[in-house]
Amino acid sequence: MASPTAAIIVVGNEILSGKVADSNSAFAARELRAAGVSLERITVIPDDIGVIADTVRDYQPRFDVIFTSGGVGPTHDDVTIAGVARGLDVPVVLDPTLLEAIRQFGGEMTAPRRKMAEVPEGAEALIVGKLNFPIVRIRNLYILPGIPEIFREKLSALKAQLTTEPFFLSTVYLQVAESSVAPQLNNTLSAFPQLLLGSYPKFGDGDYRVRVTFESKDAGYVERAVQHLVAQLSASIIVRIE
Amino acid sequence: MASPTAAIIVVGNEILSGKVADSNSAFAARELRAAGVSLERITVIPDDIGVIADTVRDYQPRFDVIFTSGGVGPTHDDVTIAGVARGLDVPVVLDPTLLEAIRQFGGEMTAPRRKMAEVPEGAEALIVGKLNFPIVRIRNLYILPGIPEIFREKLSALKAQLTTEPFFLSTVYLQVAESSVAPQLNNTLSAFPQLLLGSYPKFGDGDYRVRVTFESKDAGYVERAVQHLVAQLSASIIVRIE
Repeated sequence: MASPTAAIIVVGNEILSGKVADSNSAFAARELRAAGVSLERITVIPDDIGVIADTVRDYQPRFDVIFTSGGVGPTHDDVTIAGVARGLDVPVVLDPTLLEAIRQFGGEMTAPRRKMAEVPEGAEALIVGKLNFPIVRIRNLYILPGIPEIFREKLSALKAQLTTEPFFLSTVYLQVAESSVAPQLNNTLSAFPQLLLGSYPKFGDGDYRVRVTFESKDAGYVERAVQHLVAQLSASIIVRIE
Repeated sequence: MASPTAAIIVVGNEILSGKVADSNSAFAARELRAAGVSLERITVIPDDIGVIADTVRDYQPRFDVIFTSGGVGPTHDDVTIAGVARGLDVPVVLDPTLLEAIRQFGGEMTAPRRKMAEVPEGAEALIVGKLNFPIVRIRNLYILPGIPEIFREKLSALKAQLTTEPFFLSTVYLQVAESSVAPQLNNTLSAFPQLLLGSYPKFGDGDYRVRVTFESKDAGYVERAVQHLVAQLSASIIVRIE
């Protein structure tokens, strides 16, 4: 029942400086969850070779699969390939498959276009999904472009290869302050220690004041935990169970 | 002209598991930029005392100011206070100001309510902004609730205390592939090495194909860099300059 673990490294000055909101990691979080993968980190870092290298060095041995988003392309600020290579202590080389794909696009083979064929040594160019845009994999690292349409299409295609047992989720909505049900939540977790239990207060208007989520890869375990909590609560505070 | 640096630590199983999209960090990125603060990291981590402690230990000496979002409250999954305390090697203690604020709310002082008065030893409870909800500061770390309405209100109030020289931004929209202007972008950066230069290709429909951003705390420097790039380009590919 152990889930594969994942991390997402978003390379993006444009996100850190507030020019663009990152939507790729939220999309990836949903997709990975649906595939039964446990996402453990999302980290947004600058377009900086040293920082990318440090983050790769830290994450690569620690998580089962790592996705990078952004910093792939022909310009000065596209340093993800160089950063990943440094983090893995391998040189940057030209990939013949990518070079050929760029040639087939036509036009002159300029330095910026050739840069798009650079990969960390030992990488392979993968064709997955429908868009004719290969992605680079090296060991357990997948290097994806940050452009949301491409990132999403490629991540969804990769998801099919990762899918393991899914998580089951049940949600209980309560019309009561979170602090007044804390004892019942705590004893539910004591009785069901493998449960992924979350409680999220809602601020302002709405038909509930706290949302309690129950998750596990065992549907029966989730069901029994929900019943354990519900049995301790007055029916009048339970808005609904989903 | 050096900018203060910042990092945001988002404590959130609900974000990693794809149940909720994090909007706090994008809001903070815009606010910090407007205040002239250079945001260097956004990291989303699980509700796990050990991981929070490791992240705090890593970031606290490295950035000028750190904000945490989430994991503050009365329930089992609210472990940010304990994680920050462990990361700074101090015990968790009860803060008299917070305890008194909770008493004034009325009602019985239950264990979950008392938990909301816990802070890392050495912290202070700050009243900033309009919402009557103190936030906890210890050294250069500000511990904010994850509820977006409160996070935003508190961050905006803190921003006023952080404001330094602002950044100036100019944007050039081009109707051409990014790779074909890469040489001109590269030589602009060589001529203006202090410039924060970004280029962002647009995929799909739109009146431009690449957006080039120029940023610096010196408005004249930005202006001269834009002129340097524009002078090298055919007028027909320049869609607009903002």
